[in-house]
Amino acid sequence: MYKINENYQKLPGSYLFSTIAQKVAAYTKAHPDKNLIRLGIGDVTLPVAPAVIRALHQAVDEMGQAETFRGYAPDLGYEFLRSVIAEQDYKARGCEINADEIFISDGAKSDSGNIQEIFGSDCTVAVTDPVYPVYIDSNVMAGRCGTFDPDTGRWSRVIYLPCVAENGFVPEFPKETPDIIYLCLPNNPTGTTFTKSQLQEWVDYANRNGSVIIYDAAYEAYISQEDVPRSVYECEGATACAIEIRSFSKNAGFTGVRLGFTVVPKKLLCGDVSLHGMWARRHGTKYNGAPYIIQRAGEAVYSEEGRSQITGQVAYYMKNAAVIRKGLQSAGYEVYGGINAPYIWLKTPEGMGSWEFFDYLLENAGVVGTPGCGFGPCGEGYFRLTAFGSYENTVKALERLKMLP
Amino acid sequence: MYKINENYQKLPGSYLFSTIAQKVAAYTKAHPDKNLIRLGIGDVTLPVAPAVIRALHQAVDEMGQAETFRGYAPDLGYEFLRSVIAEQDYKARGCEINADEIFISDGAKSDSGNIQEIFGSDCTVAVTDPVYPVYIDSNVMAGRCGTFDPDTGRWSRVIYLPCVAENGFVPEFPKETPDIIYLCLPNNPTGTTFTKSQLQEWVDYANRNGSVIIYDAAYEAYISQEDVPRSVYECEGATACAIEIRSFSKNAGFTGVRLGFTVVPKKLLCGDVSLHGMWARRHGTKYNGAPYIIQRAGEAVYSEEGRSQITGQVAYYMKNAAVIRKGLQSAGYEVYGGINAPYIWLKTPEGMGSWEFFDYLLENAGVVGTPGCGFGPCGEGYFRLTAFGSYENTVKALERLKMLP
Repeated sequence: MYKINENYQKLPGSYLFSTIAQKVAAYTKAHPDKNLIRLGIGDVTLPVAPAVIRALHQAVDEMGQAETFRGYAPDLGYEFLRSVIAEQDYKARGCEINADEIFISDGAKSDSGNIQEIFGSDCTVAVTDPVYPVYIDSNVMAGRCGTFDPDTGRWSRVIYLPCVAENGFVPEFPKETPDIIYLCLPNNPTGTTFTKSQLQEWVDYANRNGSVIIYDAAYEAYISQEDVPRSVYECEGATACAIEIRSFSKNAGFTGVRLGFTVVPKKLLCGDVSLHGMWARRHGTKYNGAPYIIQRAGEAVYSEEGRSQITGQVAYYMKNAAVIRKGLQSAGYEVYGGINAPYIWLKTPEGMGSWEFFDYLLENAGVVGTPGCGFGPCGEGYFRLTAFGSYENTVKALERLKMLP
Repeated sequence: MYKINENYQKLPGSYLFSTIAQKVAAYTKAHPDKNLIRLGIGDVTLPVAPAVIRALHQAVDEMGQAETFRGYAPDLGYEFLRSVIAEQDYKARGCEINADEIFISDGAKSDSGNIQEIFGSDCTVAVTDPVYPVYIDSNVMAGRCGTFDPDTGRWSRVIYLPCVAENGFVPEFPKETPDIIYLCLPNNPTGTTFTKSQLQEWVDYANRNGSVIIYDAAYEAYISQEDVPRSVYECEGATACAIEIRSFSKNAGFTGVRLGFTVVPKKLLCGDVSLHGMWARRHGTKYNGAPYIIQRAGEAVYSEEGRSQITGQVAYYMKNAAVIRKGLQSAGYEVYGGINAPYIWLKTPEGMGSWEFFDYLLENAGVVGTPGCGFGPCGEGYFRLTAFGSYENTVKALERLKMLP
């Protein structure tokens, strides 16, 4: 009899957002008249920008004509998209990344989940706590995480890097040296960042200790402060130790359009093996390229008109973030994030548990957020609100929050 | 120092289609005036059908308006697409497959490559020889294939099922029982099929021996004969032992549009573990759904107008297949496939090697095909031509072939 991958059985059953959905459904059923405001899931709400819509229509027309129809895309992405990314996201910021080091994909979630495949199965993994669950779950599936202890909420082989108010959400170096270090900056869920010198210390640490950094920069478009790096490659030596994952979901509203990319520098070698070559082989074997029309949409994001429109979208969400931050602060909450990220991370009042605060907010304000403990044990006592709602709803939610007993 | 996945190092370097591309480039450089006809790679050439183009435009417009914008899709696919697939591809043919057993993805290549993840790392794998390389390569990356012997072209732990003219391209049951059996029917590269009773024997074999069948039905739209099953689920007991992978690439010209799906029946259990649940977990963790606009394009394929248009496209390619088949036969070749598949598999003349025939055809006829040995040792002495060219080029290629010395 064939056998299954037993590692899947180790994954704890219930998923954060399913539990939230169930609680919300139960509440809505009991109070059908209440108008809920959802600031929980990190999904955008503004429509796709006009310049991108126009590019999509044009590419669709091309696919309908024999002379301009395109079949299989190049595995690693169309040159027109790879080169504009290299120019605008990297070279313009002084990062020496070339078009052929950029791998186009259907999104940062796929890349975040798949990237671990090119590493040895006995590599140790370090993640921040709290953390985006995909980094851990994909490594659990690959057998790297050991066993889960439901009492502590931790995996036996994972190295945790606590990120809490006390350390300014910048973790200390761990005692045990990890092989693979996941860093998401600006951070999901806390909305906090590293300064350039703080990130440089981690890059130096990785180079010194032979670790590789998986740098998830999905939220870089939300950075507003000068001293916050937009790419890990702004740090010296990063091309020798870091892979960077980017998304179009949050900067250009592509959550339902699906596009992302991963940078694997050619200088990134493990001994004499090129990780670039390995990732290219993975793409070539298990992926067939992002749709032509979606890659044209991605290209439009970098046009002058596209850039201006998506800058406007980001500004819209960041206005929401400011409403949330300031509203919470004036109501006496301890608040983090929301300056360089669309997420606001608040300390629950009076030592309330995260789920307790979730219920309290749902029942008394009709506002849905995300319990911090859902992202890891160090998220207990915290709560995440997102800036992706409409401005009107965000203002209303904060009014309700300020009126809470 | 972190370690890489050493299994990647075991993969032989050069890839079939890269070698072909290099040879073609060298030939073109040396003979810039020669007009080459490419019947090598299995990429479609007709533009996307008008009904699909219209659906794409409409969905793009929806994404540009706040009221109709869609963010994250359901992980497993939109209900509108899953249900029309269940109705038309399965229930209409008497197969008891429900919408919630269908997992929408970006294509059959991704699913073919990823599906092995849910199985144990020590499972043994059986493939036909010749075979679509993704089945083997993805299992090599997962460490299931042992070591490669360049002399025999075979992996030490893979169970090979030779498919040659002598057995009518229907393999015998192997001596050793495999855990996972990959079957691609209609077959890539040979273009041959099983009758329903032949497939039933493999389903019975799998159920009797505790094997799971990965059934790749990417070419089912090309089936013209009554007795050839379009789905593995036409066989009794298949929901207990088989996963089916389907593609929109070849039936609807979606090679550059990217859409596919995988069926994992809820009845498919390994002990008491549901493979359906495992695949859902994999989707939820490492994938974020196919683009909304592409799923609407997929839905249009099943509309009355869409069905009629893509039937026309398939007929166009199958007219090419008939030209190739008949042309080769009248020139004295031994020919297989091309009746229920867009691939024609020919025996090279006078014991020529596959690469020898490739060079001969390129130099003397200016026609590019694919050497059979690129798909496995049993493909040596065979050669693949595809029906995906234009009718005019296909006719011209066959005229040249008939004039060969």
